[in-house]
Amino acid sequence: MHHHASLDKAFEKENQVTVNLPEIADLDNAALAAVLQHKIDRKTVPHGALGRLAALAQRLGMILGSTEPRLQAPQLLVFAADHGIAARGVSAYPSEVTWQMVGNFLAGGAAVSVLARQHGIAQTVVDCGVRRDFEPAPGLHIAKIAHGTADCASGPAMSAAQCAQALANGIELVRGLPGNAVLLGEMGIGNTSAAALLTARLGGIDVGEVTGAGTGLDAAGIAHKTAVLREALTVNAEATEPLTVLAALGGFEIATMVGSVLQAASQQRVIVVDGFIASSAVLVASRLAPQVLQRCVFAHCSNERGHAHLLQLLGAEPLLDLGMRVGEGSGAALAWPILESSCRILNEMASFESAGVADKA
Amino acid sequence: MHHHASLDKAFEKENQVTVNLPEIADLDNAALAAVLQHKIDRKTVPHGALGRLAALAQRLGMILGSTEPRLQAPQLLVFAADHGIAARGVSAYPSEVTWQMVGNFLAGGAAVSVLARQHGIAQTVVDCGVRRDFEPAPGLHIAKIAHGTADCASGPAMSAAQCAQALANGIELVRGLPGNAVLLGEMGIGNTSAAALLTARLGGIDVGEVTGAGTGLDAAGIAHKTAVLREALTVNAEATEPLTVLAALGGFEIATMVGSVLQAASQQRVIVVDGFIASSAVLVASRLAPQVLQRCVFAHCSNERGHAHLLQLLGAEPLLDLGMRVGEGSGAALAWPILESSCRILNEMASFESAGVADKA
Repeated sequence: MHHHASLDKAFEKENQVTVNLPEIADLDNAALAAVLQHKIDRKTVPHGALGRLAALAQRLGMILGSTEPRLQAPQLLVFAADHGIAARGVSAYPSEVTWQMVGNFLAGGAAVSVLARQHGIAQTVVDCGVRRDFEPAPGLHIAKIAHGTADCASGPAMSAAQCAQALANGIELVRGLPGNAVLLGEMGIGNTSAAALLTARLGGIDVGEVTGAGTGLDAAGIAHKTAVLREALTVNAEATEPLTVLAALGGFEIATMVGSVLQAASQQRVIVVDGFIASSAVLVASRLAPQVLQRCVFAHCSNERGHAHLLQLLGAEPLLDLGMRVGEGSGAALAWPILESSCRILNEMASFESAGVADKA
Repeated sequence: MHHHASLDKAFEKENQVTVNLPEIADLDNAALAAVLQHKIDRKTVPHGALGRLAALAQRLGMILGSTEPRLQAPQLLVFAADHGIAARGVSAYPSEVTWQMVGNFLAGGAAVSVLARQHGIAQTVVDCGVRRDFEPAPGLHIAKIAHGTADCASGPAMSAAQCAQALANGIELVRGLPGNAVLLGEMGIGNTSAAALLTARLGGIDVGEVTGAGTGLDAAGIAHKTAVLREALTVNAEATEPLTVLAALGGFEIATMVGSVLQAASQQRVIVVDGFIASSAVLVASRLAPQVLQRCVFAHCSNERGHAHLLQLLGAEPLLDLGMRVGEGSGAALAWPILESSCRILNEMASFESAGVADKA
């Protein structure tokens, strides 16, 4: 679609998202990389036999800046919000499920709650814009922008100011977290629509390729959802820059997550990415600062249609592929012990020399 | 290759492996299956969203005969032995590495030791036929048949009596184990050769299709290994029945493992299968009692060439695929928390009713 440059400029000026983004350094410590590689190569297994555990150990060492990386106090954040576009019938479940599931998280009964408990991961639910208000509760962080976004099939999902506030909230949230790892989760009826829109616009992919069943649409439902998403892309055709796109087509939980991803990367935290929605936040963040991707571990490939496309776009190789499409951060929590394993392999395994085992001639 | 029936019969009689194998019941409790499926379907996720975690939960419930399956006191067994065929240059490492690695397991420095420790899995090394003798040590079980098998490229790897003794040892070993889950590991220079031979003969697959790099052969090494394995298949052409094949082409650690697999299945234990060698033991066991496969969880697809073929032959869908080819039981230990997760999902997750979450209309 062609636009007049002057119109584009006017649009960008009016919709400019103004926020101070954290600075993110390149992970380019060649000396550390060499030491890590040597440590891995001397472990008592045939060369290369550790497969992706070796690459993961190397990555965690580089992120944490240590030859003996240790994961500490992992924090799983469930960013929750509602979406105006849900009123268009793009989801198999009603918006009420968003706040009902927040209750389920806080009571410890959701899939991600069970998995986080299993692995000693702290779970915090972040209300970024759920339509219902919550009483203060342990494990609940209030960072609400509004009661759901506007319908992006009629105009931008949020204003530039709202988007900037969500980004700032996400940055602030992570700045004060303990530990050195953040796991990204989310809840929001309608948010596979937002993720599909962000992927389509920023990735230059036809939205039909990345629109899936979400919580369980049938073929007719997916066709309707695709048509609505095409409307949204047309209505917001002028949005092409990452933050403008985020404001026009994203959600409050996604925008807050983008801020958290940027802040986590700037603090050298390990970022464990869950499914389609979390990956769409990483996509936006990586367009603002490509170095973000150096800090990410992609936990799994979700069964939601657009995720495989998006992972490919990001050059990501997920650890797991178990046909899940739960969201919530459940894939990230499920994969967490594999990150732990790779650190322990690096730190606790013997070398050929220390174990007195003969290496290959 | 065609043989005279009378010659085959004489061979089978002379090489008859006589052993009392445990009885294994069918897992056919339809009522339990229905209850498990209903429990899973009411969990607070969209229908089908748990992907393979749901199928795994169902399987563990069926094996353990419970709507609330709980994994207890997991036992990782590292079956170790040497192979006569190693003298033919089929491995990149010398046979000495088998006993050196036993020392590494007992000292806790091997990959599998690190992973077992991470997950609270008890590790026992079983000397089924290592060429060197060991002093008694905590975590070491002696069930030695001989100091390595004979060279199966010149004749049968073991006698019928040796094979029967190894099977009996494996049965006896598992009978007294605590807990309700067994993880299969192994160590033995030369044992990818034995696994390739068993897979080729029992699966009717050309051995060239399932012969890989093992501990790290180059292309010329693999070509040599394949030629030696073809010799072994020719020399042992008369062996076609599962136990005769096991004696002719297997190894002491594999034969002991077959006994352990059969016993574990008969006691309704969960069997967590590691890589190519462990899967070859399951192949033999499943030819004796197909119900064995109902008790197996395949942990991962190894990067060793024959494993993907063998998994397909077994109709197995491994949980992980991380390009590993360590053996030892490392893939089984790495996947263990996923089994735990599926039980916890079943036991701890809320239902739509208990959480007050609206289900799809």
